[in-house]
Amino acid sequence: MFKRLPDNFATSCLRGSGQVFFQENAATGACFLLAIFYASYAGGQWSTSIGALIGLVVSTLTAYAIDRRDNAIGAGMYGFNGILVGVAVPTFLVAGPVMWFYVVVGAAVSTVVMDAMTNVVSKNWGVAASTGPFVLTTWMLMLAAYSFANVGIGGMGPPRIAHEIAVAAPGIEPGEAVAIVFRNIAQVFLLGSAVSGVLIVIGLLISSIPAAVAAICGSIIALAGALWFGADPASIKAGMYGFSPVLTAIAIAVVFIKSSAKVALFALLATIFTVIAQGAMDALMSPFGIPTFTAPYVLAMWLFTLPKQALVPHPHSPDARSKLSTGS
Amino acid sequence: MFKRLPDNFATSCLRGSGQVFFQENAATGACFLLAIFYASYAGGQWSTSIGALIGLVVSTLTAYAIDRRDNAIGAGMYGFNGILVGVAVPTFLVAGPVMWFYVVVGAAVSTVVMDAMTNVVSKNWGVAASTGPFVLTTWMLMLAAYSFANVGIGGMGPPRIAHEIAVAAPGIEPGEAVAIVFRNIAQVFLLGSAVSGVLIVIGLLISSIPAAVAAICGSIIALAGALWFGADPASIKAGMYGFSPVLTAIAIAVVFIKSSAKVALFALLATIFTVIAQGAMDALMSPFGIPTFTAPYVLAMWLFTLPKQALVPHPHSPDARSKLSTGS
Amino acid sequence: MFKRLPDNFATSCLRGSGQVFFQENAATGACFLLAIFYASYAGGQWSTSIGALIGLVVSTLTAYAIDRRDNAIGAGMYGFNGILVGVAVPTFLVAGPVMWFYVVVGAAVSTVVMDAMTNVVSKNWGVAASTGPFVLTTWMLMLAAYSFANVGIGGMGPPRIAHEIAVAAPGIEPGEAVAIVFRNIAQVFLLGSAVSGVLIVIGLLISSIPAAVAAICGSIIALAGALWFGADPASIKAGMYGFSPVLTAIAIAVVFIKSSAKVALFALLATIFTVIAQGAMDALMSPFGIPTFTAPYVLAMWLFTLPKQALVPHPHSPDARSKLSTGS
Repeated sequence: MFKRLPDNFATSCLRGSGQVFFQENAATGACFLLAIFYASYAGGQWSTSIGALIGLVVSTLTAYAIDRRDNAIGAGMYGFNGILVGVAVPTFLVAGPVMWFYVVVGAAVSTVVMDAMTNVVSKNWGVAASTGPFVLTTWMLMLAAYSFANVGIGGMGPPRIAHEIAVAAPGIEPGEAVAIVFRNIAQVFLLGSAVSGVLIVIGLLISSIPAAVAAICGSIIALAGALWFGADPASIKAGMYGFSPVLTAIAIAVVFIKSSAKVALFALLATIFTVIAQGAMDALMSPFGIPTFTAPYVLAMWLFTLPKQALVPHPHSPDARSKLSTGS
Repeated sequence: MFKRLPDNFATSCLRGSGQVFFQENAATGACFLLAIFYASYAGGQWSTSIGALIGLVVSTLTAYAIDRRDNAIGAGMYGFNGILVGVAVPTFLVAGPVMWFYVVVGAAVSTVVMDAMTNVVSKNWGVAASTGPFVLTTWMLMLAAYSFANVGIGGMGPPRIAHEIAVAAPGIEPGEAVAIVFRNIAQVFLLGSAVSGVLIVIGLLISSIPAAVAAICGSIIALAGALWFGADPASIKAGMYGFSPVLTAIAIAVVFIKSSAKVALFALLATIFTVIAQGAMDALMSPFGIPTFTAPYVLAMWLFTLPKQALVPHPHSPDARSKLSTGS
Repeated sequence: MFKRLPDNFATSCLRGSGQVFFQENAATGACFLLAIFYASYAGGQWSTSIGALIGLVVSTLTAYAIDRRDNAIGAGMYGFNGILVGVAVPTFLVAGPVMWFYVVVGAAVSTVVMDAMTNVVSKNWGVAASTGPFVLTTWMLMLAAYSFANVGIGGMGPPRIAHEIAVAAPGIEPGEAVAIVFRNIAQVFLLGSAVSGVLIVIGLLISSIPAAVAAICGSIIALAGALWFGADPASIKAGMYGFSPVLTAIAIAVVFIKSSAKVALFALLATIFTVIAQGAMDALMSPFGIPTFTAPYVLAMWLFTLPKQALVPHPHSPDARSKLSTGS
């Protein structure tokens, strides 16, 4: 759609933003940043936007410092975990010197973990590390906050033993459903704003129409599944049951090159499994008082791409550049 | 003992049943199904038998749909995880539309996980996935039940923090001990009936006398160990301390081809370690309110077959057909 | 510094002791044993010293029994996990027949796990198993103690849900700080004595001055980090925030051959991350009532050595003998 911009620090960072949704595209990444800024503006809390920028810059700089694979850096493979760390830390922890230190150290470590995890899952098993480094790094930061008095816990926990829930989600109004579908997409960036979800879809349309379609289909399937399973209504409305299935739907349906009825069914199964995995990991994380982040997606994506590794190109891996997305 | 029956859907399913105890043998698998039916008849609850059949059929059909390795399907490599999912779900969850959806989705996913896990543990590390896919898939289903109001929890939980137990198991009467030895074996299929254990041993004798001997020896060692360690008497009597050690004993003692005093000692160590791992995982799963399933066996089997991978044939792997069991 | 002593059972065991700090050096290992004996003498509890000797002997004998790689045995690669199991079990569990059985079985299993884990992490990923086998084996033993009435729990637990701590650590007196720096080092062997820490540093100086320097630097960084983060003062004073970072500092700073400012910065990041991982794993283990052992170090070491596996020699792996330490 656009001519690919040259690799430099700015485009590496912007593509890092785009890679959160597998898009090696600077314009897409800019739209995603806009979605983050809008949520900060709407919620009146700018620390997540500042964190996003710091995370993006620090993780990309760390890649320059420790790594020589410039292709991967230029494709944004070291920015997408860092930007997510940078949004997550201020979302769940109280601002303060140690919290900002957390953002910087977490972003730097996410790049190390990206290299580490890639060496295991990509080189040995042929699948993508994807947001696994973000999940692992941020879990460590969040858990440690319970041990450190100088890191205040804001928007998560408290740790508690999970218990069976008895009240099923009531029906959802059509208008409400539309907002949830976009909020599911926004929550990939930990944003609770449906408008941010619309901005993200616009960003996806710039680089890949199939990815945008898969995101919306995945979001609708996740909403229907969560309602039918009887998940917690507040969580459904906040988009917590949708962000991982959205990523799974894109990863499985769009990454499989030769689309067919069979691949669509496979992606459907993977997306439904991701809704179950979200419910499972909510219960699993409950005694620890930390969010699942995108772990349900990472698990589902690994399980559903490992079987067909020979057939699947992985644009989200540092060692392979996307052939699906148009560069910009 | 019998001529090997040709590969078709029925024999693939029956061998899938037999592979729960590593036996690529349709007659053995039929005996195992009989053991499940008997337990349903004795307990007056047929949902586990229905679940077993659905799990077996769906997981095997999924393998046909996504996979081309007909040898592995014909050997029953895609049925044994599905049948266990199909028995486990109705055992622990309340019957209802979502529960039966769980059985179908869980069985289909178990086949995907089988392929995924095989690509990791067999192709990279040279060990068998064995019942790992059943454990992982069913853990997800069970955990998610705590988040979903439309899936009622029946026979497990509630989640609670583990605590030190103070009362050691009292001595066991000789007659009681015999029943426990067979109940340990029945619990591999999550069955509480000693008669089912006898039927399973008969099934084993059809295909492999060493496997039957190892099963009984493993069961006796597990009972002795659990008593000496002072495990919970009710758990011991229900066979909960025996099913994983039984599988470990067969896997290590019978899979090592050249039997010797040293291999017997190695299998003894592995079996004792499995009893400890069962106690450990009971404490580990306690805050989550879910059963260990065969995870203690899977852990022990991986740890004790990884060192000698070059020497060990793995009949339980999809890529290698058993040379130990007589086909039927 | 000394002529390398020939490989025999005694030197294999002594080097096994030395390998806890990556030192293939019998004299160093003897110093470490002295540090254990001193702590027993000072605390009036000899069960840990006896456990250490049993663990060292049993794990090394098990290696002779199951393994042919005499080079690795002679280098002490099968003793260091066993000695740690042998110290840990009597430290946390009440003495009795099952506890001593635990020491013997745990030490034997640690050798099996060493071979198993090496086959995965060294052969497939190019990193060292290090104390991973000790951590995994001892976690199983400790967790199972909650299920077994005949294994009394002494110095750990009770399991409890983690909660946010509100009181930051107060400042530390300079004299107190020096004691903590050495106690951090002693806690690698689970010893609470600063004098034992001094004996360990002496042992390190015999074989590798860089390792001794890295140990002390890592200990100081860990103390500063834990204080700044606001970790629990009692844990800081007991050395609980230092033992894993000490190991990380040595592993990353000394194992990277060509030292430079960049490698020093990388080791600094790894050491700080290990302090965070210690806080995280304390919260993670809390509901299970078991110690982290050296898991924070193992995680950090794997994450920070995986990226540069091609550049890093791993003297701590059974398949590669140290070229850094002088043999004795």
